[in-house]
Amino acid sequence: MDTSLAQKPHELLAATLADGMAAVNELIRTRMASEHAPRIPEVTAHLVEAGGKRLRPMLTLAAAQMCGYQGEHAVRLAATVEFIHTATLLHDDVVDESAQRRGRPTANLLWDNKSSVLVGDYLFSRSFQLMVETGSLRVLDILANASATIAEGEVLQMTAATDLKTDESVYLQVVRGKTAALFSAATEVGGVIAGAPEEQVKALFDYGDALGIAFQIADDLLDYQGDSKATGKNVGDDFRERKLTLPVIKAVAQATDEERAFWTRTIEKGRQTDGDLEHALELMAKYGTLDATRDDANGWANKAKQSLQALPDHPIRQMLHDLADYVVARLN
Amino acid sequence: MDTSLAQKPHELLAATLADGMAAVNELIRTRMASEHAPRIPEVTAHLVEAGGKRLRPMLTLAAAQMCGYQGEHAVRLAATVEFIHTATLLHDDVVDESAQRRGRPTANLLWDNKSSVLVGDYLFSRSFQLMVETGSLRVLDILANASATIAEGEVLQMTAATDLKTDESVYLQVVRGKTAALFSAATEVGGVIAGAPEEQVKALFDYGDALGIAFQIADDLLDYQGDSKATGKNVGDDFRERKLTLPVIKAVAQATDEERAFWTRTIEKGRQTDGDLEHALELMAKYGTLDATRDDANGWANKAKQSLQALPDHPIRQMLHDLADYVVARLN
Repeated sequence: MDTSLAQKPHELLAATLADGMAAVNELIRTRMASEHAPRIPEVTAHLVEAGGKRLRPMLTLAAAQMCGYQGEHAVRLAATVEFIHTATLLHDDVVDESAQRRGRPTANLLWDNKSSVLVGDYLFSRSFQLMVETGSLRVLDILANASATIAEGEVLQMTAATDLKTDESVYLQVVRGKTAALFSAATEVGGVIAGAPEEQVKALFDYGDALGIAFQIADDLLDYQGDSKATGKNVGDDFRERKLTLPVIKAVAQATDEERAFWTRTIEKGRQTDGDLEHALELMAKYGTLDATRDDANGWANKAKQSLQALPDHPIRQMLHDLADYVVARLN
Repeated sequence: MDTSLAQKPHELLAATLADGMAAVNELIRTRMASEHAPRIPEVTAHLVEAGGKRLRPMLTLAAAQMCGYQGEHAVRLAATVEFIHTATLLHDDVVDESAQRRGRPTANLLWDNKSSVLVGDYLFSRSFQLMVETGSLRVLDILANASATIAEGEVLQMTAATDLKTDESVYLQVVRGKTAALFSAATEVGGVIAGAPEEQVKALFDYGDALGIAFQIADDLLDYQGDSKATGKNVGDDFRERKLTLPVIKAVAQATDEERAFWTRTIEKGRQTDGDLEHALELMAKYGTLDATRDDANGWANKAKQSLQALPDHPIRQMLHDLADYVVARLN
């Protein structure tokens, strides 16, 4: 187990939780199989083995271990969380008509939209079976509520993304749906399955919630200021796709009539021409909205770190602390 | 409460369960609302208020009432079952690229595929919250397993529908996925929530399973022999859409080499020309597969009726008996 200081926090977590994560990966492989419908493992293997960071299941194992849990259910819940995540990715790709995910062609491109919709449904149902196996009604309640928040957030994003009336509170709700709800459920169920005191369970929820929000705000900011080599995305993709994210929402809130007409044309009506992205970036610079967005991301990362104070003194707690820093470090 | 003999069995059930069904409808209306995403109630109202027969939630209420249940959870479970059904309809319409459902334009035509996928996900998550509220792990286990059977069956159908290797056992599995799994879960959870003895719970499962299979086989048969005015479908839609259903599967199993080449061309390769449907019907007549399919449907309806013997003597039991007859009566 290599835990040298040069490692990134999520790598350190992965090394610390290596045994548990191996069990999670094995469980994922077993449960995504389908005796009768070979299309299912084809599609899921493409996604699951594309090798994301497995951040969400690690958060569940980390929370459970930090709270002293030694049983088998944490692995089930970690796999549950990854299945939910993978299912939402499959459905997102249909909704966004994406051609690439993690640098590879998406399932809906390789197979078809049908496969993405139905295999996503299959993974949801598998996640549901896994969580029922824990026998914890409280865990089921948390994950049912997280699922509803995720689904509602996705629908909200679809209708709010190009609507200039979308304000920071709606944005926050979308962000909770698309990212933070699963992060906070992942950490919270880890504490619940460990039988941690209420104060710690709440702290774990708050950590996941704030970490997820910081993570998503950072992502949205990097879309405008990122290094395309590092992020794998082109600067301004969200603008071109007419997605209202925090840097633009802050600029719209302060816009003159003329600027508002610009945002209406480019985002609401989607009539973009050469030079529009540059002008959008000028307006964001004029009101300092990239800096303000960075401040917000840092604020949420700090909130995540503060939440950890209620948790037991444990090496994993420090890793989660550093993870919150790391999420925003790419901005600073 | 009008319960005259001229009523159809599902109408008689609806009249008998009128109070419970009113509560189910009210719960559905309440729970499909979303404070923040108005697209959700728009889409669901379109579907939910299109007014299907509400057969599945009626089965849950009927099972619970027949087993003496008087509590509030049956209404929750009935709404759960209807939400799952509606969610699968939304996703099916995306998968089938359907333009009509129950004689009205589908949601994916009125809005878009995105709305159908995401609102379907929302309804699944709402159903999940509702079932957790019953606090019954056994109910959750049943519904989780039914969800997995449904999703697996849908994927299987997608890959098996045009594959001539699809035999009657694969067909049965697809039918359980697309129809019978939710019927049997609907009746079984009614018995479980009522605390019925195991023998009765099993009988309720068997009834729902056999009724659902009879229902789906009848549907598939009517596609070839139905009166298009009565069914609202054109004769041979499944053939044109290259869906292998029981009448064709039975004909393929007995096909000469020349006939097999015909099925390969029309179903597997989808190269259909004028007169192909007529020739397909001739081949089905040659081997008597429509009659054999009708016998199968009647056999499942009989199995459903036999299952009822283990259940308490109750007016609803007779209605369920007549419902099994009614499902196949349109064939005979």
